[in-house]
Amino acid sequence: MSKVIKNGTIVTADRTYKADVLIEGGVISKIGQNLSGDESFDATGCYVMPGGIDPHTHLEMPFMGTYSADDFESGTRAALAGGTTMVVDFCLPNPGQSLLDAIKMWDNKSVKAATDYTFHMAITWWGEQVFNEMSQVVDRGINTFKHFMAYKGSLMVDDDEMFSSFQRCSDLGALPLVHAENGDVVAALSQKLLAAGNNGPEAHAYSRPAEVEGEATNRAIMIADMANSPLYVVHVSCEQSHEAIRRARQKGMRVFGEPLIQHLVLDETEYFNKDWDHAARRVMSPPFRNKQHQDSLWAGLQSGSLQVVATDHCAFTTEQKRTGLNDFTKIPNGTGGLEDRLPVLWTRGVVTGRLTMNEFVAVTSTNIAKILNMYPKKGAILEGSDADIIVWDPKRSKTISAGNQQSVIDYNVFEGVEVTGLPRFVFTRGELAITEDKVDAKPGHGEFVAREPFAAVNRALSTWKEITAPRKVERAGIPVSGV
Amino acid sequence: MSKVIKNGTIVTADRTYKADVLIEGGVISKIGQNLSGDESFDATGCYVMPGGIDPHTHLEMPFMGTYSADDFESGTRAALAGGTTMVVDFCLPNPGQSLLDAIKMWDNKSVKAATDYTFHMAITWWGEQVFNEMSQVVDRGINTFKHFMAYKGSLMVDDDEMFSSFQRCSDLGALPLVHAENGDVVAALSQKLLAAGNNGPEAHAYSRPAEVEGEATNRAIMIADMANSPLYVVHVSCEQSHEAIRRARQKGMRVFGEPLIQHLVLDETEYFNKDWDHAARRVMSPPFRNKQHQDSLWAGLQSGSLQVVATDHCAFTTEQKRTGLNDFTKIPNGTGGLEDRLPVLWTRGVVTGRLTMNEFVAVTSTNIAKILNMYPKKGAILEGSDADIIVWDPKRSKTISAGNQQSVIDYNVFEGVEVTGLPRFVFTRGELAITEDKVDAKPGHGEFVAREPFAAVNRALSTWKEITAPRKVERAGIPVSGV
Amino acid sequence: MSKVIKNGTIVTADRTYKADVLIEGGVISKIGQNLSGDESFDATGCYVMPGGIDPHTHLEMPFMGTYSADDFESGTRAALAGGTTMVVDFCLPNPGQSLLDAIKMWDNKSVKAATDYTFHMAITWWGEQVFNEMSQVVDRGINTFKHFMAYKGSLMVDDDEMFSSFQRCSDLGALPLVHAENGDVVAALSQKLLAAGNNGPEAHAYSRPAEVEGEATNRAIMIADMANSPLYVVHVSCEQSHEAIRRARQKGMRVFGEPLIQHLVLDETEYFNKDWDHAARRVMSPPFRNKQHQDSLWAGLQSGSLQVVATDHCAFTTEQKRTGLNDFTKIPNGTGGLEDRLPVLWTRGVVTGRLTMNEFVAVTSTNIAKILNMYPKKGAILEGSDADIIVWDPKRSKTISAGNQQSVIDYNVFEGVEVTGLPRFVFTRGELAITEDKVDAKPGHGEFVAREPFAAVNRALSTWKEITAPRKVERAGIPVSGV
Amino acid sequence: MSKVIKNGTIVTADRTYKADVLIEGGVISKIGQNLSGDESFDATGCYVMPGGIDPHTHLEMPFMGTYSADDFESGTRAALAGGTTMVVDFCLPNPGQSLLDAIKMWDNKSVKAATDYTFHMAITWWGEQVFNEMSQVVDRGINTFKHFMAYKGSLMVDDDEMFSSFQRCSDLGALPLVHAENGDVVAALSQKLLAAGNNGPEAHAYSRPAEVEGEATNRAIMIADMANSPLYVVHVSCEQSHEAIRRARQKGMRVFGEPLIQHLVLDETEYFNKDWDHAARRVMSPPFRNKQHQDSLWAGLQSGSLQVVATDHCAFTTEQKRTGLNDFTKIPNGTGGLEDRLPVLWTRGVVTGRLTMNEFVAVTSTNIAKILNMYPKKGAILEGSDADIIVWDPKRSKTISAGNQQSVIDYNVFEGVEVTGLPRFVFTRGELAITEDKVDAKPGHGEFVAREPFAAVNRALSTWKEITAPRKVERAGIPVSGV
Ligand SMILES: [Zn+2]
Ligand SMILES: [Zn+2]
Ligand SMILES: [Zn+2]
Ligand SMILES: [Zn+2]
Ligand SMILES: [Zn+2]
Ligand SMILES: [Zn+2]
Ligand SMILES: [Zn+2]
Ligand SMILES: [Zn+2]
Repeated sequence: MSKVIKNGTIVTADRTYKADVLIEGGVISKIGQNLSGDESFDATGCYVMPGGIDPHTHLEMPFMGTYSADDFESGTRAALAGGTTMVVDFCLPNPGQSLLDAIKMWDNKSVKAATDYTFHMAITWWGEQVFNEMSQVVDRGINTFKHFMAYKGSLMVDDDEMFSSFQRCSDLGALPLVHAENGDVVAALSQKLLAAGNNGPEAHAYSRPAEVEGEATNRAIMIADMANSPLYVVHVSCEQSHEAIRRARQKGMRVFGEPLIQHLVLDETEYFNKDWDHAARRVMSPPFRNKQHQDSLWAGLQSGSLQVVATDHCAFTTEQKRTGLNDFTKIPNGTGGLEDRLPVLWTRGVVTGRLTMNEFVAVTSTNIAKILNMYPKKGAILEGSDADIIVWDPKRSKTISAGNQQSVIDYNVFEGVEVTGLPRFVFTRGELAITEDKVDAKPGHGEFVAREPFAAVNRALSTWKEITAPRKVERAGIPVSGV
Repeated sequence: MSKVIKNGTIVTADRTYKADVLIEGGVISKIGQNLSGDESFDATGCYVMPGGIDPHTHLEMPFMGTYSADDFESGTRAALAGGTTMVVDFCLPNPGQSLLDAIKMWDNKSVKAATDYTFHMAITWWGEQVFNEMSQVVDRGINTFKHFMAYKGSLMVDDDEMFSSFQRCSDLGALPLVHAENGDVVAALSQKLLAAGNNGPEAHAYSRPAEVEGEATNRAIMIADMANSPLYVVHVSCEQSHEAIRRARQKGMRVFGEPLIQHLVLDETEYFNKDWDHAARRVMSPPFRNKQHQDSLWAGLQSGSLQVVATDHCAFTTEQKRTGLNDFTKIPNGTGGLEDRLPVLWTRGVVTGRLTMNEFVAVTSTNIAKILNMYPKKGAILEGSDADIIVWDPKRSKTISAGNQQSVIDYNVFEGVEVTGLPRFVFTRGELAITEDKVDAKPGHGEFVAREPFAAVNRALSTWKEITAPRKVERAGIPVSGV
Repeated sequence: MSKVIKNGTIVTADRTYKADVLIEGGVISKIGQNLSGDESFDATGCYVMPGGIDPHTHLEMPFMGTYSADDFESGTRAALAGGTTMVVDFCLPNPGQSLLDAIKMWDNKSVKAATDYTFHMAITWWGEQVFNEMSQVVDRGINTFKHFMAYKGSLMVDDDEMFSSFQRCSDLGALPLVHAENGDVVAALSQKLLAAGNNGPEAHAYSRPAEVEGEATNRAIMIADMANSPLYVVHVSCEQSHEAIRRARQKGMRVFGEPLIQHLVLDETEYFNKDWDHAARRVMSPPFRNKQHQDSLWAGLQSGSLQVVATDHCAFTTEQKRTGLNDFTKIPNGTGGLEDRLPVLWTRGVVTGRLTMNEFVAVTSTNIAKILNMYPKKGAILEGSDADIIVWDPKRSKTISAGNQQSVIDYNVFEGVEVTGLPRFVFTRGELAITEDKVDAKPGHGEFVAREPFAAVNRALSTWKEITAPRKVERAGIPVSGV
Repeated sequence: MSKVIKNGTIVTADRTYKADVLIEGGVISKIGQNLSGDESFDATGCYVMPGGIDPHTHLEMPFMGTYSADDFESGTRAALAGGTTMVVDFCLPNPGQSLLDAIKMWDNKSVKAATDYTFHMAITWWGEQVFNEMSQVVDRGINTFKHFMAYKGSLMVDDDEMFSSFQRCSDLGALPLVHAENGDVVAALSQKLLAAGNNGPEAHAYSRPAEVEGEATNRAIMIADMANSPLYVVHVSCEQSHEAIRRARQKGMRVFGEPLIQHLVLDETEYFNKDWDHAARRVMSPPFRNKQHQDSLWAGLQSGSLQVVATDHCAFTTEQKRTGLNDFTKIPNGTGGLEDRLPVLWTRGVVTGRLTMNEFVAVTSTNIAKILNMYPKKGAILEGSDADIIVWDPKRSKTISAGNQQSVIDYNVFEGVEVTGLPRFVFTRGELAITEDKVDAKPGHGEFVAREPFAAVNRALSTWKEITAPRKVERAGIPVSGV
C-alpha cells in the first residue's frame, strides 16, 4: 500500500523545493509534482526532511550491575517522537570478551527497536584476538570503532593501543571514534577533589576541565595522523577540543567532530544548582561548559568544522543518579535527549538564523549518513532512499517536560525549554510512527543497517599517505667516511 | 531526440553510484538502470559528473584600448574542451556608467557563448545611481556584486563605498565579492620598486606580497560583518588570506573563499625565469606564491574553509604582455586556464588522494552553483537539472601545450604539465560539444542564467543579525545624576 | 642635599632584592647596604620601584573650542599621587600646521608639569612639509609619531599616508604609533545608529565594535611591515586587536601593544547604566569591552605579547560630556586614570597573582622606557638613573573616589574600587612629591626628556629587511623567446 | 689581584652602554668610567657580555655501558672556548635509584668542571621515595625536575606520574621540565620502519615527526596547568610544539620554551646525506626539521614566546654512533654544540638583524638565569654578580671545524659554517680562561650553583590558582527534590 506526502516543501542538505513524495515498499519510489498514492498525508506549510539520525546512543547499557533506563523500545520510541528515525548504539565488549559475542548481546537488545539502527564497536581492550576480530566486525557491517581515552580502569585504552587499533582501522577501511578526555588526569583530579571534600555533582565538572578534553582530542588526532587514519571525535563540548579539530583540518587531516545538543544549549551553571538532584541529573562526560564554548560549537556547525549533532542519550533515573549521593564519581554518567534533539536544535539554530534549514538537515542526518557510509540509503530524500521521513511543522510548539516525554526516566534536562518546530508526521521505512502527539512506534520494526568499509575519505587518505610516505635513503658503502 | 549516457558511474558532490542518464530537451529527464534513448553514449570506465562551472572569467575584457584575447567564443570553447559547461563573467561598468548599460555591453559580447553563462556585476564607482540600479540588476537575475580593493585610480573602491555597497547587498539579498589586495600599498610598493630600477615581471610579485592580500581580505570580512552581509573572496592565493577567512568562519561569519587552479599548482619561481616572456605571461593578481601557500589552499579545499576552484581566465597574448616590457605595471594582468582547470585539479588533487572525487565535483561545480543560488539547475546530476554533463575518463591523459589548446593565445602557463583524467564527452544543456579531442562547440548555444536573490545563507544571516542587533538603553530623565 | 631610602626591597623589571638607595643631584648615586644620606626615608615593609611612566596622556588637549580638563599641572599632580613620575603627551598639529609650531604650543602647556615628560608627535595631515619636518622633530628628541586611523574628517590619515609616514619613520629610526579603529566604518555605523534613534552613550560602544578595532590593527601592522618599520599600537582593548598583534609577532614582526588600565578592569555594561551621566563619563575610544577581552589583555601582559599599561588620560567634566546629550557622537571622548593606574593594576594584577611584581614594574615603567629609547635614564633603579622612585606600601589601601582625587574633574570611572597597594613616598628626579596622602607636586619641576632615534629594534629590523629585500632578476635579452 | 676590562661596550639583556668593569674576588666589584685594576684587558671594539649559560648538557652521560664522550673537563673547556661560562647538566637516576645517590654520582663527575654548573634532576621513575626525596633535592639547591615523555621502556614516565610529579613541583616551588615526544608513538613508528627495512639514520627522523613532538608538548602543558605548575619545555624543535606553547601563553599559562642552536640552523636534509656517518652523527631527538620550523623558532625568540637557546650537548664519537649501523634505534642520540652555540647564534641572529644584541644576551644567558632563579648572580653584568664575562669581538671570524675544536669527538655538526663574532676574552668567576684561540680552562675551578625554589612566577601562579580554584556548592538537604 503506497503513501504519498503532499503539498510540502522538501528540505535536504543541499536544497529546498516543493514536491510530493511517494512511498512504496518502505522506500521513496518517486519525488515529483502531483503524485498520488493509496494513502495521503498533507504536508501543507511543512518541511519534508530526512529523518534524524542520532549517531550516539547508549540504550540498555550495562552499568554497575544495572542498565541505563531507556532500552531499544523506549529509546527508539522517544527518538521517533522527536523526528529521529535511526540510532547508532555502542556495542561494548567486556574486558577480554570477544567482539563477536558482544555483537550478539547487542543484537538481542535491539530486537525491540522501533527504528532502524546500527552499531559502533568499542575497543575496550587490546590483543591479537581483538585485532583479528575487527575484520569480522567489519564484515558484519560495522565500520566504526570507538575508543575511550577516559574511564581509567575500565574502558580506557592507552596511546599504544590506540595507535595499533587506528592502524588496523586504516587497513580495514574503517573509522576510529574517540571519547576524548585524559583519563589519567580526570582520575587524579577526582581523587584530589574528593580528598578535599568536594563530593557534590559540581565536582564532576571540576574534574573534567575543557583543557583535559582538548588535550585528549589533540592526542587522538596526532595518533590518527600517524596511523594514516581519519578520525571522528564524539561529544566535542568545548573550544579546546574544537580548536584541535580545526587545527588538524587546516592541515588537511580528515577529522570529524560531533557536538551534542546538550552542550549547544545548556551550561555549567546547571551544576551549581542548590538542588542535588537537579545537578546530578546533568552529570555526563564531558560536562556542560560555558557560553563561550557554546558559541564555539555553533560556529563549528556553521563553518563545517563540526559536522554532526548527537545526544549521547544514556538515561538514568533519579534513583540511579543517587548512587553517587556522597561521591560524585559514583553518579552514573549520562543524560537523555533523543526526543528533544531536533526540536531544540531547530528552535535555537534555525529560528534564530544561526543555521539554514539545509544545514539543520545536514547536521542532524545527512552528514552522519555520509560519514558512516550509508548515504543515500539513509539521510536523504531521494528516489530509492529508505522512507525515513519527517514532515516538520515549523509552527507547532510545546514546552519540553518530563511529564509528557517518551523516555522512561523521571526528568528531562531540557525541562521548561519552549520549542517551536515539531513533527507533524514521522515515517520509519515507510511506516507512519508519529502523527503529532500520537505515537505509534512498533517495537521490532527496526532493522540493523550494515555499512561498507572504505568510504571515499578513507581511500583518498590512504592514497595520499602512500604518496607521502617516508622513503629510504639508498647508500652504497655504509659507512663511507672517516672524519 | 533523446540521448542516454550508459554504463557510467555517476559522481556528484554527495555520492558515487552506477546509473544511466537520460537527456531530453536539454535537461536530465531520468536517472536509473538500463535506460535507453535515441542516441547512446558509452561511459564504461568513466565518471559521469556535473559540468564544471568557472565562476571567474574575463572574456573580451576591455583593457587599455584593447581586449583580453579570449572572447565568449574561444573562451567557452576552451571551457568545454576541459569539461567546463558554464562561466561567470564580470560585467565592468566604466566610471560613471550605468550598471544597466554595462549589462547591455556584456549581453552583446556573450551572444557568441557556446556554454551557459551568468554575470557578476562590478561596483566600480559609487553614487545614488549605482545604489538605485543595484536593485534592477538583481531583478535582471544578477545577485553578486564584485568590489576591487586594488587597481587604485581605476577600479578600486574605498572602505566607505564598500560598506555602503555591502549594506545594499544585504538589503537586496545579494552577495558581495571582493578582489582583496590593498591598492594603496600595492601602488606605493610599485612606485618604490620602479624607482629602484625593479621594472621586470618579478617586481609584479614583489609589489603584491601575501601580507597585502591577507590584510585586504581581513578588512573586507570586517566590513561585511558590520554590514550584515555574507562575503565571497575571489582568487584566494595565500595563507594570510585563507587564515583571515578561517578566522571569520570560526566566529560563524558567512565567508566563502575561491582559490584558483593556478595558485594551487604554480609557484613564484615562475617569475624568476630568465626569459622575460615566460615571467610576464604569468603576471596576474594576486601573483603565484610558494609551496606553503599551496599547501594551505589544498587544505582549505579538504576542510571546507575554501569552497571553489576557479581560473580568473583573462588571456593576453605575448604581444599584449610586452606592453609592459620596461615597466611591469604595464603588463596586462591575467592568465588562461579555462581548458585546464578540471584536468589539472583532477591530476593533482584526486589522483594524489588530496581530494575525493565527490570533493572534486563540489569545488568545481556544485558548491558555486549553491553559492550563486542556481543549484540544482546547475551543478547537479539530478532529474530536472540542466544536462550540463561531463563523461570523465580517468585513464585518458595528455601533456598540456599551447600547441593544441582552444584558447587563442600563444602560450599556456601549464605548458608541459601531464594530466591524467580528461573528458570523453561533454554535454552543454544536452548538446554534445566534446568527444575526446573533437570539439563541436556551438557559438550562440549558450544562454544567460538568471539567479534569484535571498539565498538561504542570506536569509539566515539577516535573521541572526536582527536578533543580535544593538538595543537602545531606555533612560527616564537624561541626565539623572550629579556626581 | 642627599636623600636615602632605607630598609626597602627594590623591585625592578628583572629582580627583587633588599638594598638602600642614595639620591644625589636628582639621580640615583648609589644602591647598596647600609647607605646614609642627609635625609632618610623609611621603606620598611615597602617595595622601592621605578616611578610609573604613562605613555599615553592628553593634557589640556584642544577639543571643540574647549580643552580636556586636566592640564599639565593637575594631570602630573594626579600622576604623582598615584606613583607615576613621567607622562608622554601627544602633540597634535592642526591640519596644515607646522609640526614645529605644534611643539611650541605643547612646550608652552608643559611648563606647568610637575613630572618629567616627553611628547609623541601626531601625523594629522600629510605633505612635503610634514615629511621634511619629521626629521627636525626627531632632532628635537621626539622619535615617536602617532597616526589616527579613526576620527574621520579630522585627525584620520589614510593608508597611503600611513605607508609614507611609516616609511619615513623607518628611515629616521623612529617608531610609528597608531590609534587603530576603522574610521570609515565607525562613521558609517554612527550615522546608522543615529538614524535609528540610537543617540545614547551606549551607541558609542555599538559604533566601535571589537572587529572594527581588530581590522585597523591588522592593517596598520601590514603597512608597517611593508614600510620596514616597527609599530606600536595604543589602547589595545580587545582580543581581535591583540590577536592581530600576536599573529604578527609570531612571524617575527616588531609590534608592540598597549592596553589601558580601564580596559583591563572595566567592562561594557557601564554603558548600559540607566544614568546617562554614568554612561557618558565612560565614553572613550575604543570603548570598554567584555570579560573575555579583559582576559585576553591580562594574558597578553603575562605572556609578553602586550608590553605596556597606559591610561589615555583625557579628562572631561560631566558638563563637557553633556555636550553630547542628544547625540553620542558629540560626547567628548576620554576618561581619567593617571592617579589610579598603578594602584588598580597592583590590586587586580599583583595581589591576584596574575602578574609578578617584576612584571608590574615592567608594564608600568621599564618596558615603555626601553621602547621609547630612554632606558635606563627612566624606568630603572640603577646607579645613574633619574631618581624617579616610588616607595610602594603593599599594605596601604583606600577606596577610589572622585571626592579625594587630584584630577579636576567631578567623577572617577573607578569610583568605589578598593585598592590595596599605594605609594608611601614618590620622588620625581630626587624631589619628594608624595608622602602618603600628602601631595607636594611642584608645577614647573618637570623637564622635557629628549629621546634618541634608532633604538636597537629599529636597527635590527632594518638590517633584516635589507637582507631579505626583493632582488631584481637580471635578464640578458628581453624578451628572449618566442612561444 | 683585581682585573679591569677597559674600553668596551657593555651589552646586557636590557641595555647597551660604554663602561669599564672591575673584577675582584671573582665578582664584578665595580662598573664605571675609567676604572683601573691590577691587570687590564682591552675591550676596544668589543662587547662585554654576561657569559653564556647552557641549560641543557649531558656530560659523561651513561649510555649502553659506555658514556657520552665529552665529560665535565672537555665539555666545560669547549663551553669556555665558545663563551659559555656555565652549564646545567641532567642528573639521571637509574630506575629505583635514590635521587640523592644520583646527585652523588653527578657530584663526582663534575669535580673536573672548569666552569660553574648546576643540575636538573630527572624523574625517571615514580614512588613514595621519589616523592619524598624531591624535597631534599630542592634543599640541595636543585629546583628543576626533568621528565621524559619519550624513551619508552627506559626513561619515560606516563601522564599519571607526570601529574603527580608536577603537583609535587608546584608544592615545592620547583619547575618541571619535559622532553616532549610521544614515546608510545615513537616506539610504534620505529618498529614499523624497521619492519619495512628502513634502518638508516633518516628513519630516526621519520620515527619522530613534528606532530609527535607537538602532541607531547601540548599534553605536558595541560598536565602542568591542572597541577598548578609552570612548565619548561626543552629542545622545542618545531612549529607544532611552539604553537602549543604560544597557545598556552595566550591563556596566561606560565610555559617556557627552549630551542637548540642546532634546530635553528640545521635542517632535515642532513639525514638524507649519502654518507651514513654524516647522517648518523646528526641523530638526536627531536631530529632536525625543515626551514619553516626554523623560521618559527627564530620568530619565537624575537617575540618572546621562546626564551632560551641551548645545545643539548651530548657528544658521541663516530665509533659510538656506528653501534646503530644496522638499526637506527641503536644510534646513540646526541650532538655537540657547546663551543659553537654563541658564535653561530650571533652570526645567524645578530649579524642578520633577526635579534638585537640585547636579545642575544637574553636568550643565551639572562633569561635562563632568571627562569632557574639564579639571577643576577649569573646572567648579569651588575655589581655583585659573578664575574662570568665574555669580551666579544664582533670582527673575529673563523670556519667551524672538528680539526680545531675542544670537544673530544671527531666531527662537528656545524663543520664548515663560517662565524663572525667570537670571544676575545672569557672570564669564569673572575679567572681568565680564554684569550682568543688560547684556552686556559682549569678543571676543578667550577663550582656547583645552588638555586632557591619559589621563584616569582611560581608564587604568582600559586596565588592565581588558589583564587580561581573550584568551590564546593553548599547544599542544605541532599537531595531536596522529587521530579
Ligand atoms: Zn563518551
Ligand atoms: Zn557516549
Ligand atoms: Zn582580481
Ligand atoms: Zn578577475
Ligand atoms: Zn586614541
Ligand atoms: Zn589617546
Ligand atoms: Zn631530550
Ligand atoms: Zn637532553
